Amino acid sequence: MFTTQTYQRRREALKKEVKNGVILLLGNIENPINFEHNTYPFRQDSTLLYYLGIQEPKLAVILDIDEDKTILFGDELSMDEIIWMGRQETLKEKSIKVGIEETRPHAQLATYLQKVEASKRVVHYLPPYQSANKILLSNLLKIPIAQLLPSVTLIKAIVQQRSIKEEEEIVHIEEAIRVSNEMHLLAMRMAKPGIKEHEIANAIQHLAADQECTMAYPPIVTINGGILHNHYRLHTLQSGDLFLNDSGAENVMGYAGDITRTFPVDKTFTPKQRDIYNVVLHAFTTAREALKPGIRFKDIHLHACLALTEGLIDLGLMKGNPKEAVNAHAHTLFFQCGLGHMMGLDVHDMEDLGEQYVGYTDAEPKDTKTFGLKSLRLGKELQEGYVLTVEPGFYIIPELIDMWRSQGKNSTFINYDKVNEYRDFGGVRIEDNFLITANGYRLLGPELIKTVEEIENYRANY
Amino acid sequence: MFTTQTYQRRREALKKEVKNGVILLLGNIENPINFEHNTYPFRQDSTLLYYLGIQEPKLAVILDIDEDKTILFGDELSMDEIIWMGRQETLKEKSIKVGIEETRPHAQLATYLQKVEASKRVVHYLPPYQSANKILLSNLLKIPIAQLLPSVTLIKAIVQQRSIKEEEEIVHIEEAIRVSNEMHLLAMRMAKPGIKEHEIANAIQHLAADQECTMAYPPIVTINGGILHNHYRLHTLQSGDLFLNDSGAENVMGYAGDITRTFPVDKTFTPKQRDIYNVVLHAFTTAREALKPGIRFKDIHLHACLALTEGLIDLGLMKGNPKEAVNAHAHTLFFQCGLGHMMGLDVHDMEDLGEQYVGYTDAEPKDTKTFGLKSLRLGKELQEGYVLTVEPGFYIIPELIDMWRSQGKNSTFINYDKVNEYRDFGGVRIEDNFLITANGYRLLGPELIKTVEEIENYRANY
Repeated sequence: MFTTQTYQRRREALKKEVKNGVILLLGNIENPINFEHNTYPFRQDSTLLYYLGIQEPKLAVILDIDEDKTILFGDELSMDEIIWMGRQETLKEKSIKVGIEETRPHAQLATYLQKVEASKRVVHYLPPYQSANKILLSNLLKIPIAQLLPSVTLIKAIVQQRSIKEEEEIVHIEEAIRVSNEMHLLAMRMAKPGIKEHEIANAIQHLAADQECTMAYPPIVTINGGILHNHYRLHTLQSGDLFLNDSGAENVMGYAGDITRTFPVDKTFTPKQRDIYNVVLHAFTTAREALKPGIRFKDIHLHACLALTEGLIDLGLMKGNPKEAVNAHAHTLFFQCGLGHMMGLDVHDMEDLGEQYVGYTDAEPKDTKTFGLKSLRLGKELQEGYVLTVEPGFYIIPELIDMWRSQGKNSTFINYDKVNEYRDFGGVRIEDNFLITANGYRLLGPELIKTVEEIENYRANY
Repeated sequence: MFTTQTYQRRREALKKEVKNGVILLLGNIENPINFEHNTYPFRQDSTLLYYLGIQEPKLAVILDIDEDKTILFGDELSMDEIIWMGRQETLKEKSIKVGIEETRPHAQLATYLQKVEASKRVVHYLPPYQSANKILLSNLLKIPIAQLLPSVTLIKAIVQQRSIKEEEEIVHIEEAIRVSNEMHLLAMRMAKPGIKEHEIANAIQHLAADQECTMAYPPIVTINGGILHNHYRLHTLQSGDLFLNDSGAENVMGYAGDITRTFPVDKTFTPKQRDIYNVVLHAFTTAREALKPGIRFKDIHLHACLALTEGLIDLGLMKGNPKEAVNAHAHTLFFQCGLGHMMGLDVHDMEDLGEQYVGYTDAEPKDTKTFGLKSLRLGKELQEGYVLTVEPGFYIIPELIDMWRSQGKNSTFINYDKVNEYRDFGGVRIEDNFLITANGYRLLGPELIKTVEEIENYRANY
């Protein structure tokens, strides 16, 4: 928990920014797996965590700016529930710890909002992502789900505030990254021919759970690193495979880490693996060194793409002028996605609030058409206090290669015959998390081994 | 996967039972954790698993009885999705394996249902438990969510069919129980002073995951066994504590195990622990020996309550005539819940379809008022092929004791002074899973050690 003052300060700043009306923040509910009372592990909504910090289902907060009131709506346990679930700290007690004096039963939220509506005041609310909250909002506001209209004013105010990480938040992010790094070292010790992908995934999850961490996202633990969102985990690792581990812990306060390492199942890289790895690593360091306030992340992305393209030209996979190749987006045959994204209470921070607001500006909106750029979640100018990932990669997707080749796409820049030699290569990604500082950047968490030599030396012992 | 014929046979039987109209079965979707694309592990709806067997989100099946058609609605991966997620077996291929020739895009479901509506034919659908399916059903049928009216005919037909387990299903249930038993033995080896509850929970989850099993429900792994639904897991085990482990695996086909064992953190039971344990064990064996077709499970429950009461009278916690005590529900001070429930594709099998239909009959509905009986999920006459749990317990709930005592409740049968000596006792539960056979019952899965001596002998080695 942060201090009472922290939560109060955050709420006051939000109210000041939104200026008038009523802010309605909905917490998450418990999601049923296969029947109502068999539920997934509860995860509080990140915005509610940020302004309220209470990890309990079915809460709502009203920040009534006009009447200068803050009310927490939620239900205390009934005697029946105490018999089943034990006596716990009351909601009232939790509420006071985060600086809210007034609590009311959840059922009274509707009444409160009806009065607000009657007085023609505006209710600011966020886009709901949980279906239960879509239904709740629709009922509360008497608006069909399809016609709900989240408040852009509220979204922008929250994005502005949550984007600039406080020092206390950095401590939690670094805690999540510390555990994430341990997960990665464990995977490096375990990976060898004969073990299954999911055995490694299960072990790193266990390691994190023993430190009270969950997975910030479903881990990608795979010998098919060319498949970007690969959650199939039943392959057996074999000599010759490249192994890609993209996994991060979420700490007890809800903050994420998001780290990727790629290495061979064998103790050493083959020359082909080493060459590609070093090209990706060069793109990574190129991007990292460019991090600082005032630079657009889209430009860093393109800068990294150029470094990647130059490397691939050296290896003979691409050809021609590297700048022209990047302008033609030819590199997206190998790097189909974005260089990175904001990170914080969500692994893709605030993705529920809308990528346009988190990663872009009204003046420079997202390019939603160009292959490659349409997958870049963050494009705007960096500010001191941003926390983000840098994660260049090289991915072989046979379907994409065949499609491009049959269309003769970018044949000026792609050496398709050479590319064919890499059809079974898989993928390489290297990812760390950074804080933007006044003059540049700071790597978050302890340094995790990354070079070919470091990884080979570490794995030689296991 | 079961055979094509199995799924076809099940669907044909269902159509025959429902007789006419159109059956609409909705699969589950992926549930967002903190934003739309960060989702919990997918779990297919159990009814869809039973009739279709395809573990994929956003499917719907139409069984058009009148027109003798079976159609699977769902979407094939787009090229964009193949790039991100890799080429996979197509929905069409999966569909054919389970005997459905016709697949259509999900978006065409609405059109199909509009035609059914236009022809004034009835659409049978089940009660939705996922909010996303509430919204979907409401949109498809143009009925407000609050006015959705699930088909009792369909519910009853499915309950009748799924209640009688097929031999192939028993194989899977026993597989889940085998893994569950391994989880319990691991917990017995790990439990000792100084270890934390969640370390044991994490280890058993890891063991199950390595065998491709998930948890059939959030495990209750606790030194506060008196709290019936206890998911807090950060206590450190201490000498003198009783440790209760209620956890079960779900196998790769979706079938559950549900096993509970209770034992002391120390190597041996104290006399007090042993006495109570043996009372609960006696109630357990009493109930088990009564299992057979034709007997009402409610009567077995009350029979077990009588055995428990007799034991507690012997120990001086209760007094008076045991039958009168049970008639007065005095035993519910210590055994507040039900003796067991149906089990299968759900740990509380078919709970989403309604307890009234799964556990009771129109002629003998559930007692929803009497404390104790209102928590008995299964009351009706047993049939050959039922799979169920037997799980008597003894739970000390200080809040309940204080409430009853202050009301003078059942003071003829409760020796409150003696009960006070047990305020810190915690709880004991013993639970196994059984198949009802032609002449009685069969324990499912391998036998798991249960007596005081067996548990003490096993734990002596660790």
